Amino acid sequence: MIETKIKSTVRDVIDFPKPGIVFKDITPILKDPALCINITRELAEQLKGIEIDVVAGIESRGFLFGPALAQLLNVPFVPIRKVGKLPYKTVQQSYDLEYGKATIEVHEDALLKGQKVLIHDDLLATGGTVVAASKLIMQLGAEVTGYSFIIALDFLKGRLRLEPYTKQIFSLASY
Amino acid sequence: MIETKIKSTVRDVIDFPKPGIVFKDITPILKDPALCINITRELAEQLKGIEIDVVAGIESRGFLFGPALAQLLNVPFVPIRKVGKLPYKTVQQSYDLEYGKATIEVHEDALLKGQKVLIHDDLLATGGTVVAASKLIMQLGAEVTGYSFIIALDFLKGRLRLEPYTKQIFSLASY
Repeated sequence: MIETKIKSTVRDVIDFPKPGIVFKDITPILKDPALCINITRELAEQLKGIEIDVVAGIESRGFLFGPALAQLLNVPFVPIRKVGKLPYKTVQQSYDLEYGKATIEVHEDALLKGQKVLIHDDLLATGGTVVAASKLIMQLGAEVTGYSFIIALDFLKGRLRLEPYTKQIFSLASY
Repeated sequence: MIETKIKSTVRDVIDFPKPGIVFKDITPILKDPALCINITRELAEQLKGIEIDVVAGIESRGFLFGPALAQLLNVPFVPIRKVGKLPYKTVQQSYDLEYGKATIEVHEDALLKGQKVLIHDDLLATGGTVVAASKLIMQLGAEVTGYSFIIALDFLKGRLRLEPYTKQIFSLASY
């Protein structure tokens, strides 16, 4: 079962990025090409029955599987990036971090009005970045039709913050 | 021919990231799933005959095609990241930018001694980051066996800086 395989492969790094946090390091997954292929397939499998016009992935770890997932679903991939990285005209969303603020953005011509967008990231934690990404999608007149994560840290209750956008929230391994 | 298709799809953004630079924006490529699949296949096709144990991709745009290329070649993917992003123990390389310095790093257990590593990024410009990535690979006792880019800006002479590591330098479209 893929959840068991993911959990036995991910590495827990204690006190990263700061004391008290146990970070789920997915780089050991990337070392296992068969597992990477399976993860991409299983992500796509979970999404059967959901209408998806575009996969939007969140920089940087959402780029590791997002483009391969988009290729498998045969839809465009849209990168959501930290502010200042995208070269063309953008729309932005800022959101609160524990200390300070962060801003993400997307090209203003990245989506057409009414397109159904799947948001992908490697891991769902508190959901702050993913909520901001959802607002970006809606700012362009498109619709969030689903969320897809490899790992969800359910104890952080991120799902509750995403449900107002759509209840189609998927992950392959949860804690 | 894929070079023509890439060149007609990439968007030139004038004066990004600063006045005088014409930035090659690959986000229109990502909107075309058939082209993305072709690019991944053609990157792999160019590498036939080269021994590759690992694909190493450079954050962030090297993550857009690097992992899909690694899946297609059936080898591990190793992320080379900006300093402070990788959670486990790392080795680092700093390099000069036009103003100031940048540092990239890789997990110290990312590679085994003697492994043959293909370095992938979306675009070869002056080659500064790619040289630093090559030094990281060698710091871990592994070997740079090839370079693979979607686009190469040959007028910036980046190839000359990479040739001391290996002459196996490939790109799908060059300017």
